[in-house]
Amino acid sequence: METNQLIETIAPVVASNQLLEHWQGHRKLTRKVIEIFPDDKFFSYSIGGMRPFCELVMEMIDLADGGVEGIATGNWKSGDNFGHVNGNLPKTKEEMLHVWDQVTIKINEFWPQITAERFQQVEKAFGAYEGANYSTLLYIIDNEIHHRGQGYVYLRSLGVTPPPFWERC
Amino acid sequence: METNQLIETIAPVVASNQLLEHWQGHRKLTRKVIEIFPDDKFFSYSIGGMRPFCELVMEMIDLADGGVEGIATGNWKSGDNFGHVNGNLPKTKEEMLHVWDQVTIKINEFWPQITAERFQQVEKAFGAYEGANYSTLLYIIDNEIHHRGQGYVYLRSLGVTPPPFWERC
Repeated sequence: METNQLIETIAPVVASNQLLEHWQGHRKLTRKVIEIFPDDKFFSYSIGGMRPFCELVMEMIDLADGGVEGIATGNWKSGDNFGHVNGNLPKTKEEMLHVWDQVTIKINEFWPQITAERFQQVEKAFGAYEGANYSTLLYIIDNEIHHRGQGYVYLRSLGVTPPPFWERC
Repeated sequence: METNQLIETIAPVVASNQLLEHWQGHRKLTRKVIEIFPDDKFFSYSIGGMRPFCELVMEMIDLADGGVEGIATGNWKSGDNFGHVNGNLPKTKEEMLHVWDQVTIKINEFWPQITAERFQQVEKAFGAYEGANYSTLLYIIDNEIHHRGQGYVYLRSLGVTPPPFWERC
């Protein structure tokens, strides 16, 4: 079935501008979780042998950064340069927030280029993971929610109250 | 702007059947996390004063059960009857998995009734939370990912390896 046929015959769930707002809302919440995280614990605190929150945040940044560009343009960077893979992370929380904000701008810049056809195009994301681009995009958003939820447990165990899950502004 | 205009002029991201597969994939993963959770810890284990995993799972069940029916039909049950609110939970993990599987069937039954217009319709979800139905649906899926991610930390701290995040079959 052709892409346009697929979309016309089966109900679309969410429009491009709506999902952008949804994602950026999630990113605002994640940014708050980074801000509230105790500075020293951000780079070191762990439960059950899991990665510290800084590495989980770096993963979110790497996937969002390379992901939005790949989905928009078809130019997929390899994951070899991922900071969360090669350990090349910002050294302070402030620097991490700066990189976070740069990616927020990049998402808004690349997003309007993504057509209905691009969302449905099957590609090897990051040169490795084959799937429709909408599926890769949902994976990137879901992965942020998954790891941020883990950050909530880190915070609770440190006696810090995280922002409400429904707060996206 | 009318619903149809909106969808026709702005790129749709994902079709109804694709999001159903995506959600049910997530639910398969969550089911595995419930299965692997040590039986006694499922109802009692907590980190940082958070709710035990049984209550988080009950919340997922309540939202999915009432949510898919509300989005499909416009008949929203009040949250007063939610098991995770009034403490009316299954007493064993096996019973919880049985309820989980009933909701899986219910989602598949109600889903085909949800039209593009229903996804965009603004309603008071569960009689309380106003928003477009697609947004409520994404909230329900995101909430499951969020709390399941917390379950991963519970498991890791108990020395149990959770299933890979990308495993959805």
